[in-house]
Amino acid sequence: MTTTELVSQIKMKKSFLCIGLDVDLEKIPTHLLEKEDPIFEFNKAIIDATHHLAVAYKPNIAFYEAYGIEGWQALEKTISYLNEKYPDIFTIADAKRGDIGNTSTRYAKAFFSDLNFDSVTVAPYMGEDSVVPFLEFENKHTILLALTSNRGAFDFQTKKVDGEEVYKKVLQTSITWKNHHNLMYVVGATKAEYFAEIRKIIPDSFILVPGVGAQGGSVAEVCKYGLNENVGLLINSARGIIYASTKENFAEAAAEKAKELQQEMQNILENI
Amino acid sequence: MTTTELVSQIKMKKSFLCIGLDVDLEKIPTHLLEKEDPIFEFNKAIIDATHHLAVAYKPNIAFYEAYGIEGWQALEKTISYLNEKYPDIFTIADAKRGDIGNTSTRYAKAFFSDLNFDSVTVAPYMGEDSVVPFLEFENKHTILLALTSNRGAFDFQTKKVDGEEVYKKVLQTSITWKNHHNLMYVVGATKAEYFAEIRKIIPDSFILVPGVGAQGGSVAEVCKYGLNENVGLLINSARGIIYASTKENFAEAAAEKAKELQQEMQNILENI
Repeated sequence: MTTTELVSQIKMKKSFLCIGLDVDLEKIPTHLLEKEDPIFEFNKAIIDATHHLAVAYKPNIAFYEAYGIEGWQALEKTISYLNEKYPDIFTIADAKRGDIGNTSTRYAKAFFSDLNFDSVTVAPYMGEDSVVPFLEFENKHTILLALTSNRGAFDFQTKKVDGEEVYKKVLQTSITWKNHHNLMYVVGATKAEYFAEIRKIIPDSFILVPGVGAQGGSVAEVCKYGLNENVGLLINSARGIIYASTKENFAEAAAEKAKELQQEMQNILENI
Repeated sequence: MTTTELVSQIKMKKSFLCIGLDVDLEKIPTHLLEKEDPIFEFNKAIIDATHHLAVAYKPNIAFYEAYGIEGWQALEKTISYLNEKYPDIFTIADAKRGDIGNTSTRYAKAFFSDLNFDSVTVAPYMGEDSVVPFLEFENKHTILLALTSNRGAFDFQTKKVDGEEVYKKVLQTSITWKNHHNLMYVVGATKAEYFAEIRKIIPDSFILVPGVGAQGGSVAEVCKYGLNENVGLLINSARGIIYASTKENFAEAAAEKAKELQQEMQNILENI
């Protein structure tokens, strides 16, 4: 998917909501556990109930790997379902991968070519040659970790290198890489006050924002400093939406929570 | 596996060789492609021919993910085969994972509990709460990326934070974390001159050393600065061993290359 197509979808739906499909078999409604593939059935129901409110879905790959082969089968079915039934939806493999060049190429192939995700999250620690293989895929997007939503972000990301924080060094360096127009970035909603500084370095890029809801981040605060001309934000919520109810009506309950966030986003978009 | 058991194995075999099982279907002998599971058959033959010369095997997970479900099945069969037939061998899932706390727990479960690897490589960018969930597993080892073998290591890892390089900050910070005795580290063989400084921070830890062979690192140089009282090194070679021949005798050819490295290691161990 091109960035232009993503922006069109955002404007049409008046939403920049991304829903995190982080499926935990201990948290989904128990009646689904009798199905042949409970993870996929859960995702399918959530997607069908929320696709008009969200512009992106983001399965965190850890939740699928934790179920081995069955988890990978559920992931394959979920991304195929999204691509076939809702081809306008932007898909994110939240994998946080990264390895030396020829090995990163393997990960890029797995997520972009085989599974056909629109984007994948990538860790920057190993530098340019670990990221550039992902950037070579046309109309695919590499979402680089910059400033994450967790407490551990303060261990290294905010430490100063030559007078500037490591995450800023990551941003500044990344925009010199080949095909850097295929980059997006992860910045946590829990770090809203950092968005103004970040927008000085990457004014035009899309930012994927985890940490709203369970982790305590605020949509309004993030938008105040993070919005750009093309909206430029994808705000993710997982637990707050997908586990809104553990009863048979879980999908409707998820849609209600998604609708609340979409309404908040629509209000913001109509008042800028 | 305990560190003591790993050290015993090293002393018995007079080897600290780790063999990288980075299987590429375009590089393995063509007669294997007719088998039901060519990746597993290749690994099995390599392991059976080299297990007396190596103390560890390290599948890089990217190579398996790139083949989807079939890749994961081959990985599961490979680790099961190692655990059943050669339980004294140290196994490394080279996955370079890392995510916020509750998500890292999922990755730890996948590699330590379900697949039953002895260790997994983890990226440090997201800090303490992304690594500590791995450290909670008793007699399992978390191998933290410190200074990697690739060119991109110079983009961020060697930049100075408060007067000290980022990779040193990673080492120093990591030894303050809970259960840090379960940590090992990745330092590339292409950075041999850095080992003396690194040993001042982590004198007793095991270091996994990629980059010998195809990437240009030297065993002798690494040992000069990196050995400690318990040997403390696992030197990895992948392409140089597993693709020594593409003919029917590939396993014997791999064993010859492994034997050369084991002999070099034995000479070093007998002369310290």
